[in-house]
Amino acid sequence: MEITQKPLVILNFKTYIESTGLKALYLAKISEQVFKETGVNMAVAAQGADLFRISQEVQIPVLAQHVDPVDVGGHTGSAILECMKDAGASGTLINHSERRMELADIDNVIKKTTMADMTSVVCTNNVETSAAAATLQPDFVAIEPPELIGSGIPVSQAEPEIVEGTVAAIKDINPKVRVLCGAGISTGEDMKAALDLGTEGVLLASGIILASDPKNALLDLVSKI
Amino acid sequence: MEITQKPLVILNFKTYIESTGLKALYLAKISEQVFKETGVNMAVAAQGADLFRISQEVQIPVLAQHVDPVDVGGHTGSAILECMKDAGASGTLINHSERRMELADIDNVIKKTTMADMTSVVCTNNVETSAAAATLQPDFVAIEPPELIGSGIPVSQAEPEIVEGTVAAIKDINPKVRVLCGAGISTGEDMKAALDLGTEGVLLASGIILASDPKNALLDLVSKI
Amino acid sequence: MEITQKPLVILNFKTYIESTGLKALYLAKISEQVFKETGVNMAVAAQGADLFRISQEVQIPVLAQHVDPVDVGGHTGSAILECMKDAGASGTLINHSERRMELADIDNVIKKTTMADMTSVVCTNNVETSAAAATLQPDFVAIEPPELIGSGIPVSQAEPEIVEGTVAAIKDINPKVRVLCGAGISTGEDMKAALDLGTEGVLLASGIILASDPKNALLDLVSKI
Amino acid sequence: MEITQKPLVILNFKTYIESTGLKALYLAKISEQVFKETGVNMAVAAQGADLFRISQEVQIPVLAQHVDPVDVGGHTGSAILECMKDAGASGTLINHSERRMELADIDNVIKKTTMADMTSVVCTNNVETSAAAATLQPDFVAIEPPELIGSGIPVSQAEPEIVEGTVAAIKDINPKVRVLCGAGISTGEDMKAALDLGTEGVLLASGIILASDPKNALLDLVSKI
Repeated sequence: MEITQKPLVILNFKTYIESTGLKALYLAKISEQVFKETGVNMAVAAQGADLFRISQEVQIPVLAQHVDPVDVGGHTGSAILECMKDAGASGTLINHSERRMELADIDNVIKKTTMADMTSVVCTNNVETSAAAATLQPDFVAIEPPELIGSGIPVSQAEPEIVEGTVAAIKDINPKVRVLCGAGISTGEDMKAALDLGTEGVLLASGIILASDPKNALLDLVSKI
Repeated sequence: MEITQKPLVILNFKTYIESTGLKALYLAKISEQVFKETGVNMAVAAQGADLFRISQEVQIPVLAQHVDPVDVGGHTGSAILECMKDAGASGTLINHSERRMELADIDNVIKKTTMADMTSVVCTNNVETSAAAATLQPDFVAIEPPELIGSGIPVSQAEPEIVEGTVAAIKDINPKVRVLCGAGISTGEDMKAALDLGTEGVLLASGIILASDPKNALLDLVSKI
Repeated sequence: MEITQKPLVILNFKTYIESTGLKALYLAKISEQVFKETGVNMAVAAQGADLFRISQEVQIPVLAQHVDPVDVGGHTGSAILECMKDAGASGTLINHSERRMELADIDNVIKKTTMADMTSVVCTNNVETSAAAATLQPDFVAIEPPELIGSGIPVSQAEPEIVEGTVAAIKDINPKVRVLCGAGISTGEDMKAALDLGTEGVLLASGIILASDPKNALLDLVSKI
Repeated sequence: MEITQKPLVILNFKTYIESTGLKALYLAKISEQVFKETGVNMAVAAQGADLFRISQEVQIPVLAQHVDPVDVGGHTGSAILECMKDAGASGTLINHSERRMELADIDNVIKKTTMADMTSVVCTNNVETSAAAATLQPDFVAIEPPELIGSGIPVSQAEPEIVEGTVAAIKDINPKVRVLCGAGISTGEDMKAALDLGTEGVLLASGIILASDPKNALLDLVSKI
């Protein structure tokens, strides 16, 4: 399941109870419906233990939320790329603000992901770390100012200069890296603003997952594209 | 799936390629066969992304290898108990030497596991930390001197005084806590020695997983009980 | 510089700017004055880079706030016990809630501290982890419910049952371990309540360090003993 | 104490017993002598608890080995920049391979170091992470392939293409960033090779610290410049 169309919406399930187990499967199916109904490229980032169940049931890309920077072997309790891929993951978030990674490990996991022909989405917190991430040649960089995550205040409207600065800094280093933005995104206006600033999509979570009607929230999100 | 019979054998899949994905499922089925053929209580500890697939297919307990000490919510990339349980885990290893945890987090995860009616298996490295773990009231403490893990030198024969000391220290603090031993265990002799020293079972990995014939290795393991 | 008298007051300098560098030296001198004026046993826990300067200038015990669980060798950036001792530390806090440690490392550092003839003060967050810590035979266990740290609400008055339960649990396991309590302590009433509950002293920080007149605050703290 | 001359030699004391306490002071004095005798710019990176004592006694730059990415406040056990500077540090190593840091924290500490008018030396493990580090605008990047650290095999001779590639990648991103190389460096030949490859100095440790005669080892190191 490649991620080729644009714009792209990645729905990060985090570890909300509303997006765990069967509820995660339900949200993945809704995301697939929105893809089929609107043609907008949708992907979900699920908890490790939910990857297999979801990837068996939907036709949109299913990403892991994190991969540990270790190889196969004696690493009890680690989440390795090989197991994630076998469970159906077609890519992974890397360095999410809730799971920051060491610089050398980000480099390592991007390389492993690329070698496995999977999609890498590196999350960053500002213009400077976005530029640093871009030198490592991931598929995507997703800029998410930590202070706006879960705030309901969309980064694309509250701090447009960070989004624009990130797009410029990344394209200057490596034009092939695609830029997403996250943090506070939930409406069609937020997403339109994100695209107008030069991004190719959004990474979001609570604005959809905790909505009273997630499908309608997703439909609204992609309505202004 | 309760863990009631004894002795108990827990096969830790770690992150070996030989125990990932379909190969993990195969090893789980072998373990189930050994249980059915010999009546010896078998359990497997699988990678997070393999839990669902395995638990759907076998009738023996499937444990997680690690649970992160966080509650449901915004914790991208964490392995939460709720998701593990939903995926079919009936318990979890805690504080394995390859995934050591903070003291406060061990306490937290044991409590969460107990509240969820799941089995807790705390791994420890010596007599002192085994006693400390016993005060936290887990179901099992598994003593594994780190220097013997993966060595092929069975702790039950190389350092019997550590196993005996651990059993004594734990029973002195809380007689309800059951003691396993690990590190270097692979043969029927090793397991018999472990039981003779007062343990109620073993936790093992490479001795079986990397064996040329894992099923025969398991049958040999339980042959002297 | 041994810690023998009782009760004991340990003033944790944390990393407040008010207790860094020359200001840390000033607070240490105030603490020494209070010891000389009142006879109450005072100790300070200073930042690593302040240990040498302070220990050269005061006659009360100076503790480290943390020691990394590594031996001498190639560990760039680690704070090793040998260097702390050479700089004048006569003991160390271990596992403070702002610097939680793995169980195996707590055991390791207590042993290293004891071998070096230094004082170990293990911080814990509840009755259960206090009992666990006591099995490891530190000199002191300091119980500090995290939710009260820096709150100004004294644990000795807000949650007396936790303090009493901790004293009982620890003495049951090892009567030689001495119990301190912390979190929210700042006044003479708070300290008297702590001692009345069976503790042998207090561990405190912001209540004194951020006071408008730290010396008077310390004098008030020890006024009801 | 600014670091302006070139080439530069940074002697990392790590946590060897041979470079702890009074022995660290002795090595710092030797380094100062070599600076005075040869004019080659020398600096030392000392353990936190040794910074004050050393900086009081020598006239060459004294760096910290690591700074925690936290501000002043309630962070017991952390090594904050403010305290390091007050103790005499004029800069710090960042992200040493023995103390890897998260990407966002490297960015944070470089900014704090720059704001404090101190020198930042970011350690990296390969060409890719060196380029990433250069985007964050540190004063120096020190490339040290981890497999060669402490090996006695000089990176400047064993893997010259990594050193050259790093110099090229860094200068392409930010010509103002100065490049050091480390790992296995100990002789004058090693250092000459490093400079010939375009670096402006070396970061080294065991080759000097564990030498039978550290001063002669240092004099040999700088003899071919």
